[in-house]
Amino acid sequence: MMGNPAAGVHEKERTKPLSHVIEAQQFDRELLAKLFDVTREMENVKRGSPDAEALKGYIMATMFYEPSTRTRLSFESAMSRLGGFVLTTENAREFSSASKGETLEDTIRTVEGYSDIVVLRHFESGAAKKAASVAQIPVINAGDGPGQHPTQALLDTYTIQRELGRLDNIKVGLVGDLANGRTARSLAYMLSKFDNIKIYLVAPDVVKMGDDIKEHLTQSGVDWEESDDLQEVAAACDVVYQTRIQRERFGDRVEDYARARGRYIVNRKIMDCMKKDAVVLHPLPRLDEITVEVDSDPRAAYFRQAKNGLFIRMALLKMLLVGW
Amino acid sequence: MMGNPAAGVHEKERTKPLSHVIEAQQFDRELLAKLFDVTREMENVKRGSPDAEALKGYIMATMFYEPSTRTRLSFESAMSRLGGFVLTTENAREFSSASKGETLEDTIRTVEGYSDIVVLRHFESGAAKKAASVAQIPVINAGDGPGQHPTQALLDTYTIQRELGRLDNIKVGLVGDLANGRTARSLAYMLSKFDNIKIYLVAPDVVKMGDDIKEHLTQSGVDWEESDDLQEVAAACDVVYQTRIQRERFGDRVEDYARARGRYIVNRKIMDCMKKDAVVLHPLPRLDEITVEVDSDPRAAYFRQAKNGLFIRMALLKMLLVGW
Amino acid sequence: MMGNPAAGVHEKERTKPLSHVIEAQQFDRELLAKLFDVTREMENVKRGSPDAEALKGYIMATMFYEPSTRTRLSFESAMSRLGGFVLTTENAREFSSASKGETLEDTIRTVEGYSDIVVLRHFESGAAKKAASVAQIPVINAGDGPGQHPTQALLDTYTIQRELGRLDNIKVGLVGDLANGRTARSLAYMLSKFDNIKIYLVAPDVVKMGDDIKEHLTQSGVDWEESDDLQEVAAACDVVYQTRIQRERFGDRVEDYARARGRYIVNRKIMDCMKKDAVVLHPLPRLDEITVEVDSDPRAAYFRQAKNGLFIRMALLKMLLVGW
Repeated sequence: MMGNPAAGVHEKERTKPLSHVIEAQQFDRELLAKLFDVTREMENVKRGSPDAEALKGYIMATMFYEPSTRTRLSFESAMSRLGGFVLTTENAREFSSASKGETLEDTIRTVEGYSDIVVLRHFESGAAKKAASVAQIPVINAGDGPGQHPTQALLDTYTIQRELGRLDNIKVGLVGDLANGRTARSLAYMLSKFDNIKIYLVAPDVVKMGDDIKEHLTQSGVDWEESDDLQEVAAACDVVYQTRIQRERFGDRVEDYARARGRYIVNRKIMDCMKKDAVVLHPLPRLDEITVEVDSDPRAAYFRQAKNGLFIRMALLKMLLVGW
Repeated sequence: MMGNPAAGVHEKERTKPLSHVIEAQQFDRELLAKLFDVTREMENVKRGSPDAEALKGYIMATMFYEPSTRTRLSFESAMSRLGGFVLTTENAREFSSASKGETLEDTIRTVEGYSDIVVLRHFESGAAKKAASVAQIPVINAGDGPGQHPTQALLDTYTIQRELGRLDNIKVGLVGDLANGRTARSLAYMLSKFDNIKIYLVAPDVVKMGDDIKEHLTQSGVDWEESDDLQEVAAACDVVYQTRIQRERFGDRVEDYARARGRYIVNRKIMDCMKKDAVVLHPLPRLDEITVEVDSDPRAAYFRQAKNGLFIRMALLKMLLVGW
Repeated sequence: MMGNPAAGVHEKERTKPLSHVIEAQQFDRELLAKLFDVTREMENVKRGSPDAEALKGYIMATMFYEPSTRTRLSFESAMSRLGGFVLTTENAREFSSASKGETLEDTIRTVEGYSDIVVLRHFESGAAKKAASVAQIPVINAGDGPGQHPTQALLDTYTIQRELGRLDNIKVGLVGDLANGRTARSLAYMLSKFDNIKIYLVAPDVVKMGDDIKEHLTQSGVDWEESDDLQEVAAACDVVYQTRIQRERFGDRVEDYARARGRYIVNRKIMDCMKKDAVVLHPLPRLDEITVEVDSDPRAAYFRQAKNGLFIRMALLKMLLVGW
């Protein structure tokens, strides 16, 4: 997963900087900086302005093989904010249903006749790469099973840049389910591209961060340590990135889940330890790992972070469809 | 349910006459008159005219936690007729699915980042009020379980005004399931705001109108009586408002259902008793409580009534998004 | 099914050449020629041109009583490419659900209040005709159960015209499930309108072409024969129209299915027999009845055929809504 960014990505990738968005690893510092510039412009697109019609006449197809209403709405809103049309497929599994059995490649070849860009959510790791390998139009990976969810990684990184004004010289606490949570893993990977980063890993025993990411951090020169003291970490960090403990990972180990879930909670007390200009992020949805009392704190940035997802997706759609 | 209209509604309500549409009780005679003026204008919006782009660039999110294709299509058509964009969510329950468990408040805070107005259909009474209490954009209640369905009440009232030319000095027969049917209950409530109203209640024994509404009518000075003679009532009324006996209310009491369902039917014979300028309304869908032979009678106004739902919703979207 | 084209179709049909699209039989050679002219224009509609706004302000409702994502997306893309709005209903069965029980006629009368054209997919043969009989707006049949799927027949015919430059004087091999596959049956019917046609029928024993079509071909002066030698047929034909053997037709006769499915495969060897300017068509989706190695052959026209579905539907929407 951490190998050559271009490996397996469609041939056109080499002649144009951004043909598809398949995995977070495609984005080096330079491309990230460009993306974030365009994203910032997207924040200022005014209703009724020519910018709000930048994608007029373009059609985006959202092909979701598993439901993810939040991600779908974010992409569809992004396309609409730029004046484009949307074709929605929430039950894309129908294409490959038992009685029909079409391959993903054939489906893509058909759907690309109807649209100008495809946003693909799939249950199988590698599906987006496979789709991009046959598509003659851009493909954006909106999550492929246990694989990648690059637009989430990009919006998380953008939010840190937007909130702190920098991505170098920061201390970040990753908290919660670091074993399964793909967002925390991706963020760790993205941060490894920047200078003078310190990462604290705060996870219940059963869901510790995997060795692959730890090794990558070490090789990239990132200073990291594991901790079981959220209060101490919160006091040291510029960013506390909280994540949800996912019940479905625990099967019938109900007690393990309950223990893990209650272990590290961001509440008023944790906020009181944090620096004045630090922020709390969360990929959402949240359960009770951030208490509701925190919402009104100006350092609670998670709903701003969700909104940044809109701007990142507007920027990607614009860059892929009309360039920059 | 009949208390202070403003109770529990979002704070902004007090400074602007229409911030959200949560319950029919929000609408006093003055606001109704204004709404009906705008609705009448909506009937005349011509394709290709500037009015048909009044909401260009605005985004409406329909968040349906239970299916209601008819209501959803009506709202989406209304938004399209005014040039706006639509984000559709028919499976909004996914937001709060077992494995995720997000609160409605958090969902609204996320979705309001993607849209300019939310149309919410929910299975729990009070959900719309809860949504409006956190939303920074307008929320329209498109039905919340056994609670309110204000746009239906408004379109029913508008239809009477539109068909008869008045809302004072009318005699209305409410027929069918008056115990469970929320439309008949809401219409009785709306009519209580007007002068010199007579209401006849015609319902099978098992689904009689509740005492709360009867008391409200009495307190509001509305003359009402119960009757079991549909023919007599039809002869006296300006409006016969027929409703469907809902099978699901009867569980396994199949005989009770059959008896109630066949009790009061609007057919040719009933039409022959009615006044020349009276009208038959029905919130739709209908089964056989109005026979198909009635459809061609000019006094059969129920499909015009359904179409008025479009105009009422256009008017509400316009009033909430760009004012009036 | 092969009777008077106008039988049962809505009255308006007689005063205007195209009021609804219900069945392939509506299209005589003259109307087909006109449709194909408009379709060819649709291929050249440029983004941002006035042609791309030909249906601006119009609303199309797709009412699908059974899923068919491919057909739905094609129609919705067509409407978007011409600047129109789309209302989507993938679960239209909800209208007639047990607890509600609305008739199709009532549903259409309601939905026509919200839209300017209805695209109907239904599970019952004759549903589209029934809908058109009450609708005051155009209805397009997007497949009604075992009945008709006229836009597929039209796009298949258009593709032959587009690929070969003619519809007279051609030899066509229909291959696969000719008993159940409605596309092959419809194509045979359409071809019977043209001159000097030769049709080869190549089907496993259990799914041979029905006698009704064979009789119709004979009566129309079409030369046809059955064959069990795909190689020989491929060598003789201008068009090989391959179809999928549908597993659901075989129930638990698993062996029959396996035998039928493997019987006639279009592969490299078959392609080697074919004429240089012949083409392979397939209504899609395909399983393995055309091997993937064939895809790169320029005579493999099935993805172009799928794309032609877009242009045919654009042309129909334009002709029905604004004329030609």
